[in-house]
This record gives sequence, C-alpha cells and structure tokens, in this order.
Amino acid sequence: MTALVLEERGRLSLRPVDLPDALGPADVRIAIHTVGICGSDVHYYTHGKIGPFVVHAPMVLGHEASGVVTEVGATVTDLSVGDRVCMEPGVPDPNSRAAKLGLYNVDPAVTFWATPPVHGCLRPTVVHSAAYTYRLPDAVSFAQGAMVEPFAIGLQAATRARIQPGDVALVLGAGPIGMMVALAALAGGCARVIVTDRMLPKLDIIGAYDGIVAVPPDAVADHVADVTQGWGVDVVFEATGAAAVIAGLATHARPGGTVVLVGMPVDPVPVDIVSLQAKELRIETVFRYANMYPRAIALMASGKVDLTPLITATFPFAQSIAAFDRAVEARPSDVKLQITLP
Amino acid sequence: MTALVLEERGRLSLRPVDLPDALGPADVRIAIHTVGICGSDVHYYTHGKIGPFVVHAPMVLGHEASGVVTEVGATVTDLSVGDRVCMEPGVPDPNSRAAKLGLYNVDPAVTFWATPPVHGCLRPTVVHSAAYTYRLPDAVSFAQGAMVEPFAIGLQAATRARIQPGDVALVLGAGPIGMMVALAALAGGCARVIVTDRMLPKLDIIGAYDGIVAVPPDAVADHVADVTQGWGVDVVFEATGAAAVIAGLATHARPGGTVVLVGMPVDPVPVDIVSLQAKELRIETVFRYANMYPRAIALMASGKVDLTPLITATFPFAQSIAAFDRAVEARPSDVKLQITLP
Amino acid sequence: MTALVLEERGRLSLRPVDLPDALGPADVRIAIHTVGICGSDVHYYTHGKIGPFVVHAPMVLGHEASGVVTEVGATVTDLSVGDRVCMEPGVPDPNSRAAKLGLYNVDPAVTFWATPPVHGCLRPTVVHSAAYTYRLPDAVSFAQGAMVEPFAIGLQAATRARIQPGDVALVLGAGPIGMMVALAALAGGCARVIVTDRMLPKLDIIGAYDGIVAVPPDAVADHVADVTQGWGVDVVFEATGAAAVIAGLATHARPGGTVVLVGMPVDPVPVDIVSLQAKELRIETVFRYANMYPRAIALMASGKVDLTPLITATFPFAQSIAAFDRAVEARPSDVKLQITLP
Amino acid sequence: MTALVLEERGRLSLRPVDLPDALGPADVRIAIHTVGICGSDVHYYTHGKIGPFVVHAPMVLGHEASGVVTEVGATVTDLSVGDRVCMEPGVPDPNSRAAKLGLYNVDPAVTFWATPPVHGCLRPTVVHSAAYTYRLPDAVSFAQGAMVEPFAIGLQAATRARIQPGDVALVLGAGPIGMMVALAALAGGCARVIVTDRMLPKLDIIGAYDGIVAVPPDAVADHVADVTQGWGVDVVFEATGAAAVIAGLATHARPGGTVVLVGMPVDPVPVDIVSLQAKELRIETVFRYANMYPRAIALMASGKVDLTPLITATFPFAQSIAAFDRAVEARPSDVKLQITLP
Repeated sequence: MTALVLEERGRLSLRPVDLPDALGPADVRIAIHTVGICGSDVHYYTHGKIGPFVVHAPMVLGHEASGVVTEVGATVTDLSVGDRVCMEPGVPDPNSRAAKLGLYNVDPAVTFWATPPVHGCLRPTVVHSAAYTYRLPDAVSFAQGAMVEPFAIGLQAATRARIQPGDVALVLGAGPIGMMVALAALAGGCARVIVTDRMLPKLDIIGAYDGIVAVPPDAVADHVADVTQGWGVDVVFEATGAAAVIAGLATHARPGGTVVLVGMPVDPVPVDIVSLQAKELRIETVFRYANMYPRAIALMASGKVDLTPLITATFPFAQSIAAFDRAVEARPSDVKLQITLP
Repeated sequence: MTALVLEERGRLSLRPVDLPDALGPADVRIAIHTVGICGSDVHYYTHGKIGPFVVHAPMVLGHEASGVVTEVGATVTDLSVGDRVCMEPGVPDPNSRAAKLGLYNVDPAVTFWATPPVHGCLRPTVVHSAAYTYRLPDAVSFAQGAMVEPFAIGLQAATRARIQPGDVALVLGAGPIGMMVALAALAGGCARVIVTDRMLPKLDIIGAYDGIVAVPPDAVADHVADVTQGWGVDVVFEATGAAAVIAGLATHARPGGTVVLVGMPVDPVPVDIVSLQAKELRIETVFRYANMYPRAIALMASGKVDLTPLITATFPFAQSIAAFDRAVEARPSDVKLQITLP
Repeated sequence: MTALVLEERGRLSLRPVDLPDALGPADVRIAIHTVGICGSDVHYYTHGKIGPFVVHAPMVLGHEASGVVTEVGATVTDLSVGDRVCMEPGVPDPNSRAAKLGLYNVDPAVTFWATPPVHGCLRPTVVHSAAYTYRLPDAVSFAQGAMVEPFAIGLQAATRARIQPGDVALVLGAGPIGMMVALAALAGGCARVIVTDRMLPKLDIIGAYDGIVAVPPDAVADHVADVTQGWGVDVVFEATGAAAVIAGLATHARPGGTVVLVGMPVDPVPVDIVSLQAKELRIETVFRYANMYPRAIALMASGKVDLTPLITATFPFAQSIAAFDRAVEARPSDVKLQITLP
Repeated sequence: MTALVLEERGRLSLRPVDLPDALGPADVRIAIHTVGICGSDVHYYTHGKIGPFVVHAPMVLGHEASGVVTEVGATVTDLSVGDRVCMEPGVPDPNSRAAKLGLYNVDPAVTFWATPPVHGCLRPTVVHSAAYTYRLPDAVSFAQGAMVEPFAIGLQAATRARIQPGDVALVLGAGPIGMMVALAALAGGCARVIVTDRMLPKLDIIGAYDGIVAVPPDAVADHVADVTQGWGVDVVFEATGAAAVIAGLATHARPGGTVVLVGMPVDPVPVDIVSLQAKELRIETVFRYANMYPRAIALMASGKVDLTPLITATFPFAQSIAAFDRAVEARPSDVKLQITLP
C-alpha cells in the first residue's frame, strides 16, 4: 500500500510500503479516513528525532486517526465491520506492572505509532488492537474523531489536575495542546479558564469559546487578581515548555493550588522550588494519556466540546507532503491540519 | 423589626421581633434583599421539627439569602458598605477540630439560620460573620444570589463525587435539590447527566438544560445501557431519600463507580451491601457544604450555570405567608419560590 | 493428579482428577506447596453455594496458595524454574475496560480459583498466568506465602480507606479477615487499631500484636472516647457482616471519617443513612483486591507484618478432609488452617 | 522574664525581656519545659535572615516546645491547669480563606514563633492560642513533646505523599528533617524506607531503626533495583535541597510514582522536567504542617514512633548559648539538641 514515509530528516515520500498486516484474534483492520498532523510528526520531519527517539530507517508518519472497521479478529465482540472508529496510537503490554495499575501510558513496553521504529497510520489501512479502538457515535464526525488523540492529552492534564467544580484555571500557552488543555479544563469542571500566549492570533481563536478568556501575557496578573479577588487560580497548566514561563510557575497559583506540567522543555530548566513550597503547590506531570478516549468521545458526543473550529485546513492524502510543508510554516492562525484518505 | 415568625407548628406570623443585633468587629450588617424558601423551612412549618431539631419557641424562618452590606465591623477588610452579597447560613467555631481540617460543615458547634433555636433571615436586616458573607459580582443578580445556598449543596455533592472530566452521571430524583445536583455535576465536569423522577413536570424543567437528559424511571435502564455501552454510569446521585430507590443503588453504576447519598431518608432503609461490594463502589455522603460559596458564585458569574429558570415565582415580603402556603401545596411545576424584601 | 474435590454439598474426596494443563506462552507451571483454607472453601463445603455461585459439578477447592515454579512459558521473562512463588487466584481479561482502569478485580470476566465452575488449587500442580504469579523473597516462608491471599484483602481494605499517617482505626469483627484488616491498617499507617468482637479467644490472639488494642464490644465506646478525646476514630472497618453491627456504623467515627465495608451480609440490612450524612462519612466497599500482592509481600519481607502467629495448624495433603472438618468446627481459637502438599 | 535573645546576626544574649503576656479568653499560659534547637534558629543566629525574613530587631529564638499549662482563658474548655502540652508555633487567622479550606499553614497571615518579627519560646512562659496547644499523654515525655514540631514536618511530607500500605520509599538526605521524614513514612505505611546521605554517621543513626535501610549514595541504585525488582520506589522524598540531587529526582522513582520536595534550595535549581513526565510522576511540596500535631502525638503515644534516640544532648537554659554554639559546629553525629528550662 501507499503510505506517507519519512525517509530521513527533511525528506518525505508518498510511496508504496510493505507492512505486516496479519490480523490477530484480538485485532481489527481499519480503513483510515482522517489523520491529523501533530507537532511530533512535524518535529521528526524537521529534526529526524525527538529526544532519545531517532529516525534511523524510513518510517510512516501519523498517529491521530479515525476510520472504518473492515475486518474483525476471531475473539473481538465489541466492534463490527462498518463501525466508525478512532484509535489509541499506543498499545501497552496489558500484563505489565504499569498496565495492571491502570497506568498503561507509562508502561515501558508501549508501542506507539510514528515513534521510531514503529510505523504510523498515514496509510490506507492499519491492523490494531480492538481494545484500543473506540467506536464513534453518529454525532462525532471523522474529522472530530481524528481530534480525539490530541484532546485526550488535554483530558489527561485536566484529570490529573483533579479539578473541583468551579475552579478557575490558567493555561500558559495557546498552541494546539494548550488549546486542548483549556477546553478540557473548562468542560472538566472549571468555571472559567484564562489562556495566555504571545501569539495573538492563537488567543483570538481560543478566546472565541464561551468560558475561555484569552489575555496577553502582560495582562495576566491583573486579570487573575480581578477574577480571583487576589487569591490566585486553582490550577495552572504549563503548556509552553519555555524556561522563562516555568521560572514564574508559582506566581498566579493560589495557596494550596495545583500546577500541571504539559509542555516539554528540551533541557533541564531552572525551577524556583521555594516559591512552589511557600504555597504548598502540587505539581502534576502528564505523559500522553490512559483511559481518556471514552471520556473524549463522550464530551464530543454530548456537544459539550466542539473541536471543529480548531481544524484549520484539510488536505487530500495525495497532497500530504504539501500539508506537512504547510505545518512546518507554523502560520500563527493555523491550529490543526488534517489529511483525508480516499 | 418585622420578621416572618414560625410561632409553632402550622402557624406563621409576620410581626415585630426583638433580636440582638450588636455588630462585632468581624461582622457585617446586611439589608436582606431576597430569600428563597427551602424544603426545610416548609417542613418546620408543617411538622414543627426535623429529626432531632424541634421548634420549641417562635423562630424566624429563612436561610437562602442575598442582600446589601450596610455596616462593617472594625476588623473587616474584604467587604464594604454597599456591596451586594450572599451569606452562608451556618457559622462554625473557626478553631474547632473540624474547622481546622477544612470540614467546618460538620463542626458540632455550627449555628445555622432557621434551625432551632437559631433565628433565620426572613427579616429586614441581619448581623453576620464577614468570613461567611460573599460579594456578588455584577453578573449575579440578587435572585441568583439567593440561589447560591441550595446550589452549594449540589456543588458539595458534585465535589465529593470527585467527578472526572467526561463522566456520565445519573441523578435519582428531580426535586429542587436533585436539580441543583444535576446542574452542579454537569458544570463540574460530566459529559452528560441523566435525571429521572416520577414527577414528569419536574423532568420537563430540568431536561430543558443542554447536556441533561431527563427520562422517566422505566426508561433509565435502557438509556444508561445505550449511553454507556452497557458499562454503567460513573456516578449515581441519590436525591430522593426513598427506600425503594435506595434498594437499587448499585444497579446503574459502573464497576468501580461512585454513589453519592444526598437524599435523607427519615428512617433506616435496607441497603444491599453485597451489590455495592460486587462493583466495589465508593459511597459518599453530603452534609450541607463547606467552601462552596466561592465556587457557586464563580460558576454563575461566568455564565456556565444559570439558575434563573428554576425560580418559579417571587413574592413580596408582605405576602410571605401566602408564599409559604403555596410552597406547602407542592405544585408539580414549582421549583423555587422566593420572597423579596422592601 | 490427585486433588481435593468437593463432589457436592457436604461431600469431599481426595481423588484423581483430569484437568487441562497445557502451558501457554505467558503461563508458568507451579508445584503447589501450601494451601490455606478460606471461609469460602468451607462455605461451599457446607452449603454448596455462595450467593449466585452454585456448585453444580465436582470442583477442586483451594485458592490461597504458594509453591515452586517448575516450567515457564515461552514469553515469560520475570520468573524462572525453581522460583518460590504465590499466586493471585483471580485472573482477568487484561484488555477489559475494568482492567485497563487498574480495577481488574471488578472485571466481570475474572476467573477465580474454586469459584464455580473454576477449579481451585488443592492439587499437586497448577498452570497459571505468569503475570499473576509473584516471587517470594527468602524472608517469606511458604506458609506466609499462602497467607498473602487473605492478607491482600486486608490491604485492599486499608488502601481504599486512604489511611493517613497516625490515624486511629476501629475494626468491628476479629474473624480471620478482621484480623487481616487490623494488621494491614496498622502496618498501613495507623497509630493504633482497636479491634472488637464477641469471641474473646479471637481478641486475645489479635490483641497480642503491638499497636492493636482488643476490647470487648461493651468497652468500645469508652475506649474510643478515651483514645480520641471524644472525637471518634478516623476509620471504621466493618468485618462482621452483622445487621446489628451495621446499624451502628456511624457511632464511633469522627466527623469526616471513613467507613470500609468488608463484611458481606447475605441479605439487605437496614442502614441509618442520616447518621452517616450527619458526620459526612465516606463509605468504601471492598471486592477481593487488585495490585496488592507486591504490597503484601513487601510488608512480610521487611518484617513489618508477621502472620505466622495466625496459622493455627498445618495438615498434610492426605488429611485434607480432616482439615476441612476441623475448619467446619470453627473452634474459637482457630484462625488459619493450612494444608501442605508432598 | 529572662529569654534567649538573638540581638543581631552572630550575637545571642540570655537577658531580661519585656514581652506582652495578656491572656485572651481563648488562650492558655504555659510554663515552658523543653525547647529543641532547629536549623532555622541556628540559621538566624549565623546569617541574621532566612530568605525574605530578616532579623531587624532583637528576637527571642525557639519554636519546638513542650511545657505545662499554668492558666487558661475564660472560654477554654479542652485544657486545664497542670496539663502537659506541646504547642504549634504557627497560629493563623482562623477565618482566612486558607484556614477555612483546612490549609492554615499557607495562610499568609500566620504568625510563627521565632520568625521575624515574632518572638519565639526560649523563655520561661508563653501565652498561646488554646486551639494550637495539644495535651501530651503520659506516655509522651517533655523531651518527645518538644520533638513533635519537627516530626510534624515529616508527617506533613508523608501525608502529602499519600503513601499506600506497603509502599517502598527513598529519602534523599539524612539530616534531622530527612530522619523525621523517614520515620514518618515508615510509620505512615511504607513497608521499607531507604535513606541515603553522604554523612555516614547520620546514616548509622537512622539505619538503626527497624525497617529503615541506610545506604551510601553510590549504593542506592543497586539497592533500589534489588528491593523493587527494577520497578523503582513508590515515593522519593527530597530532603537535601541540593541541586545535584534534584537533578536526578526521577531516577529512582517507579512509573506513576511520587516525589515530595522537602528540602529548600536557596536559589532556583535545574529540573529535568521531561524525565519527570516520562514516568508521569506527581510532585508534592511541603510547607510546615497543618493538622499534624494530633497525628504525631498519637504515633508517639502508641509506641509506634520513638524519637528519643535522636535527641543527642540536652542543655540547661543557663547554657543556651553554649547549646547554640554546639549546634553551629554541626557535628556529624549530632541530630537534635534540646534546652530545658528550670
């Protein structure tokens, strides 16, 4: 089949590949419909690696996908041919110690699409574990279905924050993940979510949602003081990964509040630990997600979360390379680019 | 001053009373604007008691109130004359063991308006602890401000449920408190809240909110199975207090789910403990609320929760007795009746 | 092989059975060394059923076991031939929704030794999932290894209680499970555990442990008041299943405390819900255990928990039926009876 | 009265001071018996400040104290003249927003003994809030009573760690606070606590406790791998404040584990956030303590925790300056120095 292959750093091809596709008894085969382009796909394209993960051999990209079930394994009972679905790109060893604890995202044995040396899903069909394949209700389109993956990261952050009803949250950073976090926090119980970023076009996009207030960085302090009467926000989500932002992590949090570290700084960054201690803050970290797909789908299906305004443009599969080059441009008003397969 | 006095079971008067009104240094004086009628007020009127709390002497009714600050004590810094406010009716001993733990609602020393022998607030002015008096933002009307108290009960239930973003909840009972719980659960992170009751007019009212699905009792099982694909709901809120409902508490919950007991059955009721254990459910109970007023106000101020559709009718203070007699009628489409002071 | 077979209610045989014993790639084969007799084994013997689980065909008994690995499947890397081990008797579908959440104990698909129609382990060898087989350190004997299963129940109760360091707990009931709960709660962070029961010989046995205070029922109120200065205990573990005990569940708990329901009353029992609400208690239920074996083994290996005083008598396999008949006697000073295989 | 006064950086006097000592209705007067010397006392002595807290005027030192009640205020009911007690040195505004949440330790309005400009308790008598004064059972000596304060820090750390029964913990740093943390973690539910430090005499002292394994830094990796079978420890307590240690925070933690930051580095330190995220660790911070005194006293009274081996030497009040000079020496085998009043 023809797939979008990262041949090496900086070079993509749309060309035939030969991938194993034997269907195990607990697997399903899926015809891919829509795939979103993630920052990590782009980073492999431009840098050839992310931290310890290095592209040593040609690798199919893509891990944010929706599609249609075309074949089911012998023991699969929850899915049927024709089901519209989305897929968790990471599959753990279900008997690992981490998986038994419900923490399958941190199982060292996870295989994850488009993380070397595992091939991704920018190709016509994939074989996938049925347990990590989720049916989409009629109310959730294929385009939204391909947004479940990034939204699951937002939900993982919101869940680990242990939001209490009526919390006020501050999201530092309005990139695609910051937006997902903001929407997850709002749907997940916050009364109000304040988002800030230096990129004003991004603020305009996320600030258009009811309940989200987008403010430029120099207005955050006053806005937080005003909304919280000087007490501080209940939860700070860090979604920039920028050292300068992390230096002031404690500034806007209330005593006893929470910080969630979503952004991933490449190198160690200075942290003012005493400022975190003086408010006795709790700091949560996030690594992908576990058990979030059903929650993401439920929030989309009920209409509580609508991610379609964040889909900036859609490209046919044949123009995948153009889509990636557009992603590399990083236009200020681009949020999510998607590719649809024939 | 003239107050609404429950003289004894079944007999109300609107007559002058002589109440202490010295302003302590940490107190504020408030001109009452709006007072909601609570089921407990009505129950004292019709029965003269609630459990161990017996009306032995004339008592002013009312505890759901908003108003305007008219005088502040010497050490009060957070409130000013003219502030629009609502008040927590229960004030604990702030140095008690429970209060030090943040559980001031279960401090045995709490004094609570309109709980014998403590007078309530259906009167022109009250003196109250500033620490339990909360400023209303412009976006929250006096009518909504007087709804903060019952909504705080809903929020206490939703908070103790520890809702995770995208949960599906089921609320058993659509009385005023069941409605508050449903709206708190929805705003507090649920993807969807299913409400059931035998009183169909109540279902119509609460079912009009986006995200809330109101179904008659005989349709609950199918609806839950459909929405949760047979898995069960994450949280069941019991808001009827009815033995027949409590007998089936575990039925609709998912394995590892949560039950929150909000309704208060007068007598011990049979509970099928093994059915709760077989799903390893967690059961939370609720007693009033603690630290919920700021959350309630934040949710109203942001527009995420609008309780005005639940205010059925408003009576002038001079017609307070008529308002109570209307409340005793318990019309199926009545939710909240309020009284406004001149 | 020869196994202890429950032929039907009231009739045991030690006789050859023909059981499947193919070794899958993720399995290990274990030579059984020691098996403890559980109350459920005895109940199947005397009643032929437990609730919905009915013995319709001959079934091998036993599920509390230790042994030695004699063969490992092709993909097993954590265990080797010769390893001393104990085994979790319940094995879930690792890809079930419950298992993915870390709640594999409430996976409806669990198969559990000696729960009809699944055979137990009172036989020379078993084949078992390696993921549910745990190596015993040198410091943990086979006899203690066969106590890991019941102790895991105690740990599940203590874990769900969310004990905070220095809590005071009350355990209602000093049967074998009540004892396990008491020891788990003490090791798990309580400053002190009070245990009560009408069976005084049992109280003598558990009261011999440092940190556990055993008091007869009529002395509990005074003792709790004395130790907690009238505040009440942080956690109440209910381990009797008796209606009369459950009627007073809230009595000894502190405001904001916790109740853990471990005992399993056969029928629905009256619960005074308002008394639980007045203290805003949290009620946890327990169903077997998940992820507790490593914890149990760690506590035994470090010497923090020593269960050997609770092993009353040990019988050779050939006298298994005599061992069960002794268990049926229910002598007041018997705690755990074990059977060792040749 | 005569008090130990820090006149300015580097200069102590034992001389008469004139301190307000009016007894409020909710206060008690206490004759001080024993006072421990804390690292913060020593730091004010040697540096004249700690972070933003600067000694601008003579200040009485000391905040770890036990004593005897000699007078009780009009509304005090829980304490009587003659009661042996210990005192929480920090008293919040009980009506503050933090205090109402149970987080009184992070109330900005807290006044804390021997934190400029508040005088400490190295003097014959103090007047203190009865609500922050705790009766000592007979089983707890005055010397142990004066250890409740530092042990409360250990308990705060152990409590925020949310230890589960049978956890394995690693404590980085065996100074007095590291030791308190280790003992709190062990009593608080850990199966085993590993402690490491470069100061071998300190390791000898803490390693003498059952259940605590003291290992030099270069042996930690192997020991953790051995004890946890390569999985990592459940909780890492950082009690050095050293940048080099904080750089490797994630190294020994298991996936999904917890880090508790107890040590207070003076300046921002580099943190490898991605390494924390890759295991999805939760990081807790600690600021003093709240609601820990009753827990500390319960653990000492039951015999579960014995801190007397950590009291290295005791000085009479007249030799207080010598005691401080000994503390400044920081002998490797000194843990806690105490001063007793006549």
